[in-house]
Amino acid sequence: MHFQGSHILNIGQFERSDVDQLFAVADAMRPYAHRDKVTRVLDGAILGSMFFEASTRTRISFGSAFNLLGGQVRETTGFESTAIAKGESLYDTARVLSGYSDVIVMRHPAEGSVAEFAAGSRVPVINGGDGANEHPTQALLDLFTIRSELHSRKREIDDLRIAMVGDLRYGRTVHSLSRLLSLYKNVEIRLVSPTELRMPGDIVEALRSSGHKVIETEVLEEGIAGVDIVYSTRLQEERFASPADADLYRGRFRLNQSVYTANCEPNTVIMHPLPRDSREGARELDDDLNDNPNLAIFRQSDNGVLVRMALFAIILDVVDQVSAHASKVNWYTERRF
Amino acid sequence: MHFQGSHILNIGQFERSDVDQLFAVADAMRPYAHRDKVTRVLDGAILGSMFFEASTRTRISFGSAFNLLGGQVRETTGFESTAIAKGESLYDTARVLSGYSDVIVMRHPAEGSVAEFAAGSRVPVINGGDGANEHPTQALLDLFTIRSELHSRKREIDDLRIAMVGDLRYGRTVHSLSRLLSLYKNVEIRLVSPTELRMPGDIVEALRSSGHKVIETEVLEEGIAGVDIVYSTRLQEERFASPADADLYRGRFRLNQSVYTANCEPNTVIMHPLPRDSREGARELDDDLNDNPNLAIFRQSDNGVLVRMALFAIILDVVDQVSAHASKVNWYTERRF
Amino acid sequence: MHFQGSHILNIGQFERSDVDQLFAVADAMRPYAHRDKVTRVLDGAILGSMFFEASTRTRISFGSAFNLLGGQVRETTGFESTAIAKGESLYDTARVLSGYSDVIVMRHPAEGSVAEFAAGSRVPVINGGDGANEHPTQALLDLFTIRSELHSRKREIDDLRIAMVGDLRYGRTVHSLSRLLSLYKNVEIRLVSPTELRMPGDIVEALRSSGHKVIETEVLEEGIAGVDIVYSTRLQEERFASPADADLYRGRFRLNQSVYTANCEPNTVIMHPLPRDSREGARELDDDLNDNPNLAIFRQSDNGVLVRMALFAIILDVVDQVSAHASKVNWYTERRF
Repeated sequence: MHFQGSHILNIGQFERSDVDQLFAVADAMRPYAHRDKVTRVLDGAILGSMFFEASTRTRISFGSAFNLLGGQVRETTGFESTAIAKGESLYDTARVLSGYSDVIVMRHPAEGSVAEFAAGSRVPVINGGDGANEHPTQALLDLFTIRSELHSRKREIDDLRIAMVGDLRYGRTVHSLSRLLSLYKNVEIRLVSPTELRMPGDIVEALRSSGHKVIETEVLEEGIAGVDIVYSTRLQEERFASPADADLYRGRFRLNQSVYTANCEPNTVIMHPLPRDSREGARELDDDLNDNPNLAIFRQSDNGVLVRMALFAIILDVVDQVSAHASKVNWYTERRF
Repeated sequence: MHFQGSHILNIGQFERSDVDQLFAVADAMRPYAHRDKVTRVLDGAILGSMFFEASTRTRISFGSAFNLLGGQVRETTGFESTAIAKGESLYDTARVLSGYSDVIVMRHPAEGSVAEFAAGSRVPVINGGDGANEHPTQALLDLFTIRSELHSRKREIDDLRIAMVGDLRYGRTVHSLSRLLSLYKNVEIRLVSPTELRMPGDIVEALRSSGHKVIETEVLEEGIAGVDIVYSTRLQEERFASPADADLYRGRFRLNQSVYTANCEPNTVIMHPLPRDSREGARELDDDLNDNPNLAIFRQSDNGVLVRMALFAIILDVVDQVSAHASKVNWYTERRF
Repeated sequence: MHFQGSHILNIGQFERSDVDQLFAVADAMRPYAHRDKVTRVLDGAILGSMFFEASTRTRISFGSAFNLLGGQVRETTGFESTAIAKGESLYDTARVLSGYSDVIVMRHPAEGSVAEFAAGSRVPVINGGDGANEHPTQALLDLFTIRSELHSRKREIDDLRIAMVGDLRYGRTVHSLSRLLSLYKNVEIRLVSPTELRMPGDIVEALRSSGHKVIETEVLEEGIAGVDIVYSTRLQEERFASPADADLYRGRFRLNQSVYTANCEPNTVIMHPLPRDSREGARELDDDLNDNPNLAIFRQSDNGVLVRMALFAIILDVVDQVSAHASKVNWYTERRF
């Protein structure tokens, strides 16, 4: 595959055939992630997990994915204060750190920093999030979840009807997911947000020029009626001038079980990039949905492990060897999935 | 065993037969912890080490115990600031993080938080300390140490005579240990503390209703005469209104070699949950005891590894497989124990 | 070898024969570090990586070295605030932590702290830097790099001509490297610095009494003419009373491609302990040297992994077993070196 040895910096690198292949590999990772089998295919390999910005779950998801393939993880969390403060360039940092591992995942608060780092790295670099710019594995796991949920309903991503709800202006995940949807055919996208927090115009334009149908609305009930997926998002309050500014929109669109029952088709899938805000006053996805089998938010985070395993396997070119290094699981694995 | 797949949240879960079984397994872990053999029984398993409150040694003790069984560790240290600050519930955090590992150890500053987390987790959770509430593995390693030290003196926990010395009001470890001692027969407990820092009444009551003899005193010499074990504790100064308040009690009960020789029976075991306060003015256990072979404080912390290995082996149901995955040690292991 | 089971605390422990042996072992580690082969010789061993002072690259270099030999790493970063604040002695900390691993690497801001810790440790301790005192593996990797670069030019360390440039007063690395050079014969050392930042007199004296030729100068062009190695250093601005004091010397000696071409012999090797200061105003080694094949600064950091692997192999006495536990590499390893 052409991603062998490649950096994964943005979703623009992915053609539809790449996504198809990635997802096929991710599917093949299920027995290992679900503990039906163990594989040691990356026994001896080292992941450099360079989180110059904190993100516990993304970091641990990547690390566990690498462990599940048999590899080791060396990591750093928090800003590389010393070296940067001493005036080291990202190029130098990359040259040095890339001597310590076989592949690197990097997160950094500055837009473009991961690409700059990758230019100096001697091993493949995966972007684990560079500020407001990109977080490609999040977009890929979202799309993989859409596909998996639709498959269990005998559907495909082509002809998908999806509602994106909430802060569509600042939410990085809905931007990236929208870009990926341009690879598919005949998608209907309902964008439900306050006017001030609408999806950026260029993204809407790109969706339309892909032949997709885009409907913008401020009414939740209109948006979620007759769709396959409701993708809810949290208010990105850290992007507002003040908490008071964010308060104007907080709790505007709340999906709970009664709203769901009244407006959604049966089996409409509910997604969210997490964390969801469960505080009184917010609750974009109410806790009373927790027993709804269509709530896919935790399958979504589980899928992140599959997609990251698949990326590692493809980049390090071991897809065909995973099962040759498999063995049985010795320990108790019940009540997991 | 009935702890297969279970959460370990508090010592109230343990019957005497559970403790007996746990300790038998812990004994069987010695060859691996002492580097006579290596086992790979958990090769491929992942421990999620979630320390939302710092505790270097508890964290590393758990991590090493898991490594000694052949498993991998993914971990976080410090508060999960991002997600919690964004309003995520502990239930959601648990659902997500439990998708990344086979078992979780969690420490958190809030009482009850680990149980709340466990309710959302899809994998077994071990409480690594939740504020003033519980730290069950500390109590278990203390009791295991008492048993091991007594065994080498041809004695059992039944009929034990133990003195607990110091800040018995705020010291979490002496509370938990007292509760565990209720499982045994005919124990004599001397409680040596300033009046203001006495053991809470309900714990004393529980000991007495178990048929144990409890003697409270403010005189160190009285307390430590004729006992098998002296369990010394540090002043929990962080629990006092001010350092000046703590100063009233600091250095009140000091055990050193001359006090030991003058008052203790030969071979009286000295324990302490560590860290001990070696600063001038405190010194509840003087450094001049370091060469006393009855000073068991470092055997105590070593035993923590055995007890944690045993818990992992029981929860993950691999007790009977440990030795089948054993092999010899390749490297230099002298001067360790 | 007599370092089996030993602490590595300072370079004064090394005789020339020790260095020769260490470097021979480091050479033998290349196939593993370069991913031609994998070895599992330390499968089951645990490194305690105790970084009580932050140093991302030193920490990850040690950790990766241990992983490359097949071992596991348990680590802590940042100050062991809790226990120390509670009055625990370094002896106690060492006794406890040394029960969790087979070997420890420790970094700590206080001079002499690592030796104090080692005195309480039951396993070998490697000094990963103790304040202004020692950082022996840095000195050893510098010397190993000099040897490797010279070998590729059919030369030996004996008869070396080296220029050390910059802040020679506060730079710990040039002090240690100078001490190691005393083990060799007929070395010529040019010391290029501002008068105020000259190499300490006792080190110059020691070099001279080893029979070496030492020339001190404030003129860069004089210093770098006719040497084999230029070892450039960063201004240790954190050691100055104020940034303004440091500014007096900042950017004083800048090596760039045109200065190099005009003054250096062809194939003069360029070294630097890193990080180099790439900010406008500093730039002791200009980025325009990045394509110069004699720029050895990243080979230098790569060599750190080899030297640390070798130290682990020697201390843990597995040198002769490394290749017996070798196997082939499964994954993509191109474009690394």
